[in-house]
Amino acid sequence: MKKLINDPLRVADELLEGLVEAYDGQCSKVGTRSIVMNDIPDGKVALLVGGGAGHEPIYHGLVGTNMADGAACGDIFAAPSPDIVLDATQAVNRNNGVLFLYGNYAGDVLNFDIGAELAEEEGIKIKTVLINDDVCSAPLSEKEKRRGIAGLVPIVKMAGAASQEADSLEALAEAVEKIVLNTRSVGVSMSPGSIPATGKPTFEIDEELIGLGMGIHGEQGVSEIPMTSADELTPQMLDLIFEDFDKDQDVSALSEGDEIVFLVNSLGATTMMECLICLRKAKEILVNRGIKVHETIVGPLVTCQEMSGISFSITKLDSELKKYWDPPCQSICYTKL
Amino acid sequence: MKKLINDPLRVADELLEGLVEAYDGQCSKVGTRSIVMNDIPDGKVALLVGGGAGHEPIYHGLVGTNMADGAACGDIFAAPSPDIVLDATQAVNRNNGVLFLYGNYAGDVLNFDIGAELAEEEGIKIKTVLINDDVCSAPLSEKEKRRGIAGLVPIVKMAGAASQEADSLEALAEAVEKIVLNTRSVGVSMSPGSIPATGKPTFEIDEELIGLGMGIHGEQGVSEIPMTSADELTPQMLDLIFEDFDKDQDVSALSEGDEIVFLVNSLGATTMMECLICLRKAKEILVNRGIKVHETIVGPLVTCQEMSGISFSITKLDSELKKYWDPPCQSICYTKL
Repeated sequence: MKKLINDPLRVADELLEGLVEAYDGQCSKVGTRSIVMNDIPDGKVALLVGGGAGHEPIYHGLVGTNMADGAACGDIFAAPSPDIVLDATQAVNRNNGVLFLYGNYAGDVLNFDIGAELAEEEGIKIKTVLINDDVCSAPLSEKEKRRGIAGLVPIVKMAGAASQEADSLEALAEAVEKIVLNTRSVGVSMSPGSIPATGKPTFEIDEELIGLGMGIHGEQGVSEIPMTSADELTPQMLDLIFEDFDKDQDVSALSEGDEIVFLVNSLGATTMMECLICLRKAKEILVNRGIKVHETIVGPLVTCQEMSGISFSITKLDSELKKYWDPPCQSICYTKL
Repeated sequence: MKKLINDPLRVADELLEGLVEAYDGQCSKVGTRSIVMNDIPDGKVALLVGGGAGHEPIYHGLVGTNMADGAACGDIFAAPSPDIVLDATQAVNRNNGVLFLYGNYAGDVLNFDIGAELAEEEGIKIKTVLINDDVCSAPLSEKEKRRGIAGLVPIVKMAGAASQEADSLEALAEAVEKIVLNTRSVGVSMSPGSIPATGKPTFEIDEELIGLGMGIHGEQGVSEIPMTSADELTPQMLDLIFEDFDKDQDVSALSEGDEIVFLVNSLGATTMMECLICLRKAKEILVNRGIKVHETIVGPLVTCQEMSGISFSITKLDSELKKYWDPPCQSICYTKL
């Protein structure tokens, strides 16, 4: 890959500098790798997201109006260090607690937890909700092992809205847990991205195969299946999500009359054309089941460099979650009028 | 490329069907390849855009609230036929004229012109403004030959706002001509996309070279230069835009104190990471010149499948153009709060 970069070891720093510019004065860089909104009101329960760089427009790009108040990011594909988490936490803190909301990856959990301890030593109240929407990353019986993938975009959008009205950290954590519980994703991958520092591919996959349930860094999914058409693949992906809603005792099944937010995400090089062709089939299946799409999102929102692949995410709405979905929001990753 | 499609010859139709779904009821498909907003008010001067498919999220994705009223699209990389243009024109027409606004490509000009004649035979008043923001596609002395590239996104956004308040087709055409005149772009490419029907690359470029000024289908630019860094390339690209504003007698130079809208566009596989790294350098150069970025846009908005490359577009604002820039808008391609 010919990449438009400078020093391959400084890409995470330089992209962050560019991202702050892209916010046109709404955000500031804090510490080495965090950005924070400039106008967080006093007394607001703060929402902090984060994770590794290299997946742009997330995670930094989730900061915005009615979105996250700040993001703590690491180097390419690496968790933010505890001091980065602490810097961001101090900067978003308005003395009413800070909710940490991020994908369930071991490195992130370790470092955000240490960051939380350091912040608590300074008297900042922290709660954590982990995003674990990837139904293929572990069976239901081990749901706590599941990773966070593209479902984090509707989750952070709704959590951002919830944080505007939450009067306590506990109330926000409870609302966000419900949002996460109602969000499920399935991804596939056809080819890897490359690591900016080395140019090496992030994983390998046979030219004739497609990784069903593969994670955003190429983590193993449920199976490798022969490369197939959009119309053959789409129902297989959706069925995995439907099944998971059906079987999980903690949430009700997706039934006729239910309303959802539906996200078709490209992992990078997969074109909007392909996303739209899959969306067309997905919508037909959803309509046949009597499921109403309240709003559709489509695009490369959670990426892994020039990786090709796609994911579907469904958030099942009720009147409370709809109240979090409907307000407008603005960020580099996702803007809604 | 492993592409998630069905019949390779039906991709333009199927992506359009998906795109209509992505609008969640705001738009309808009209004829074979057009989409049109559902709520165009009576008496509105209508704005119609269009071009070849395969560049998603444009052109269909430019339809929306405070954006275009409709889009007439062709097959992959092909102009819409005159009857597609006519279908879309009839559907957006509210008896106060229809402005055609599209990129200056021979096939598009030919077919939109025939479409205009057919519409005029039915008593629909048409005016046309061609988008020719690509400064590398022809010298200033042959400006009428220049192609339209990513500058079409801020152009259509502003034209959409202008169309909300225009009381005549003539007034809208005049406003949009001024928007186009003040918008200039320069693109580069590192590697081609592929043609969905054949899998063949759209063009060839040496592994060690970068096409400076290359068009979005791989059209020849001003030169092929050795592959270089973001910080070396960015000033070369910006200088071509500055020079063009300086030399063009029809527009004033970009000077200290001027305000602009600045778009960093990815042609597809170029990552948001790279766009942001280039943006960082571009912003430094703009600030050093005393040019104020009123708003930044960044992302894969005008693409050519999985082509890698980037473009910069600058729209120079005055009080009139700012009035067209500032209102919110919503579309698949670009949404602004």
